[in-house]
Amino acid sequence: MKVAIITTGDEILQGIITDTNSAWLSEKCNSLGHRVVWQFSVSDEVNDIAQSFRFAAQKADIVLISGGLGPTSDDITLQVAASCFEKELIKDEAILKKIRERFELRGLSMTESNEKQAYLLEGSCELPNEVGTAPGVQVEWENTTFFFLPGVPNELYQIFTDSIKPWLENNADECVAEKILRCFGLPEAEVDTKIKAADLCGAKLSFRAKYPEVLLKLVARGSDRKTLAQHVSQAAQNLQVCLGDVIYNEGEEELFAKVGALLQEKNLKLGVAESCTGGYLASCITDVSGASRYFDRAFITYSNEAKTESLAVDPSIIEKYGAVSEQVASAMAKGVLQKSNADFALALTGVAGPTGGTKSKPVGTVFIALASKGSDEAQVEHFIFSRSRTAFKQAASWTAMNMLRKSLT
Amino acid sequence: MKVAIITTGDEILQGIITDTNSAWLSEKCNSLGHRVVWQFSVSDEVNDIAQSFRFAAQKADIVLISGGLGPTSDDITLQVAASCFEKELIKDEAILKKIRERFELRGLSMTESNEKQAYLLEGSCELPNEVGTAPGVQVEWENTTFFFLPGVPNELYQIFTDSIKPWLENNADECVAEKILRCFGLPEAEVDTKIKAADLCGAKLSFRAKYPEVLLKLVARGSDRKTLAQHVSQAAQNLQVCLGDVIYNEGEEELFAKVGALLQEKNLKLGVAESCTGGYLASCITDVSGASRYFDRAFITYSNEAKTESLAVDPSIIEKYGAVSEQVASAMAKGVLQKSNADFALALTGVAGPTGGTKSKPVGTVFIALASKGSDEAQVEHFIFSRSRTAFKQAASWTAMNMLRKSLT
Repeated sequence: MKVAIITTGDEILQGIITDTNSAWLSEKCNSLGHRVVWQFSVSDEVNDIAQSFRFAAQKADIVLISGGLGPTSDDITLQVAASCFEKELIKDEAILKKIRERFELRGLSMTESNEKQAYLLEGSCELPNEVGTAPGVQVEWENTTFFFLPGVPNELYQIFTDSIKPWLENNADECVAEKILRCFGLPEAEVDTKIKAADLCGAKLSFRAKYPEVLLKLVARGSDRKTLAQHVSQAAQNLQVCLGDVIYNEGEEELFAKVGALLQEKNLKLGVAESCTGGYLASCITDVSGASRYFDRAFITYSNEAKTESLAVDPSIIEKYGAVSEQVASAMAKGVLQKSNADFALALTGVAGPTGGTKSKPVGTVFIALASKGSDEAQVEHFIFSRSRTAFKQAASWTAMNMLRKSLT
Repeated sequence: MKVAIITTGDEILQGIITDTNSAWLSEKCNSLGHRVVWQFSVSDEVNDIAQSFRFAAQKADIVLISGGLGPTSDDITLQVAASCFEKELIKDEAILKKIRERFELRGLSMTESNEKQAYLLEGSCELPNEVGTAPGVQVEWENTTFFFLPGVPNELYQIFTDSIKPWLENNADECVAEKILRCFGLPEAEVDTKIKAADLCGAKLSFRAKYPEVLLKLVARGSDRKTLAQHVSQAAQNLQVCLGDVIYNEGEEELFAKVGALLQEKNLKLGVAESCTGGYLASCITDVSGASRYFDRAFITYSNEAKTESLAVDPSIIEKYGAVSEQVASAMAKGVLQKSNADFALALTGVAGPTGGTKSKPVGTVFIALASKGSDEAQVEHFIFSRSRTAFKQAASWTAMNMLRKSLT
């Protein structure tokens, strides 16, 4: 069915907040076999909100509205709906009781303004809010189903997932099967070129650049769920043939969790030495819950003294080749193994920029070393990521982790 | 004047990308004295795009459209405008030449599809694109000024800033003066309570939660720029009286750059020891260009062995008080001073979660120590940030840096 999405709130129109609810809801609706045809953002003005309801009812079968269910005076979405749809607002004692209990649980007393959130539209039904006070509301008007949701993302996610998603599944015109393939190490354009000839078995492919990785999303639509799932699986296999180990995983698990799982499986410990990435690699590794099972430590050796003192890098190597060099990267990685309990060590040295580049080592240069216990030689690779400082740190850290992934598989 | 913003593209309606252009453009328009009344996102369908143009012309004096100026077949914004506005599309030889030269500069030859980007609407004017190939276009229709912009954010920013911003300044109904105050260390609700009584001198205050900091934006609108600037300055001073050193800076400079500048000014070096934040603090410090002038090194001591080996923390302290304790935080900070060239040391140990909490040290617990050369005692503070793992790392790292800021000022 056709879906319109309306987000309300002056703070959106003033650019104070970026509306992320529309994208979230749109993706969910699409995945559930519906088609989003319009998105609007309107201010907290009665006329604008009412006009958006009328317009949306003309364009779509389903309308999702986010925002304006709060307790304050500029939260007027349901009041506008009541007058626009010519329906009464009716106090729901069960909801009122729930809100009051919520406050009592936290040792607070309910304010009068919160009472407003216990009103439903005549003929509507409550979509329970387990995270906050304002319930969602579902109501029919002009052959269109309206779903009202709070604007707070966590509350919106919960109500959508628990109450609206099942409804959308039951009312879909078609089934949908999806698969996400996560790629790293090739720019989007090159991934695109490599897969040009792949048979997608009728699935639709979309790119989603989620820097520094590239996600490929396969979506098949049709009437039979099982057939669609087979088509998507076959299409994924065909892409795999074209892309090889550029695809590092399927589904939701990101690179750092994937490599962490590999390390844990093999009961191996990782240590890290960072210069130019300044802790970003360690932070990504430790963003994964349970990282302590395979992550031993990191040395963020920003100064040359730090490299020699903390990692026992020979000062003469720094003098001879420069801090940004294959030799120093290699010595840093070996230093990690020497100074820690790690089985594998990753080390990075480079020029994050925007200043500090030279002709032979321009901004974006990075040497990444991978060393393992028991081997005398470190593997060192050289890259130039000429991007912003932050993007450089991301690209370099992901590339390091990807080198480790390849050596573990 | 009233502004409507239209973003086009199937990828927005499918939730594949989040539209950030609308928020960016809205904030700029508001700052320039205009009022955004509607935002729409429409698919790459002729009828939807045309309908959005007609609707926007009714609602607003100025319409900003982003997307659909590219070379591919689904880029149809100007074609739709031509038919909707009943204007011819006319090839502009000067633009064509510029596009061709752009390709030649990169050693590429221009494809036929790029020729499409050299067409302007009859009676329109070009808004030069210095970053990509598709120029922006300005044209009048039904007493409304339409600005067409490419959807690629960098191109949109450049064209808006160079060509549209001056036009909006000249056509504003009123002047605007603004000031941003950056706060850290108090939740939004408490900041709100503290400033309740402050005289804002007619300026409007908005909150912008940019976790973990809170930004206060003061905006004054009127006819005289100088008076407005005085009002905003006075309002900022009044807020300062209420909030004291919760306000850590005015304007664009974030906490890590601010503290970095203080360190550099005093010619001091910083060293860091992180357990629970796992490198996030070091990464934030090194996100600031030039951090090497004051950042010596960090020890990411995730395991207990790392704490004892790399930072000389006495194992008996860990055994007696636990790794997450005031005593270990203090010993880590002192260890940094001992093992580095730093004048100041920050150390963090805690429970990032979601697992690993105990009754006495629940998830979110963190001890943060600040030690300085020449002083025997470390200052240790204890917090509980019961949030997601990522938000915990942010809150703890910012709090550590804020402790250092307070001791430096």
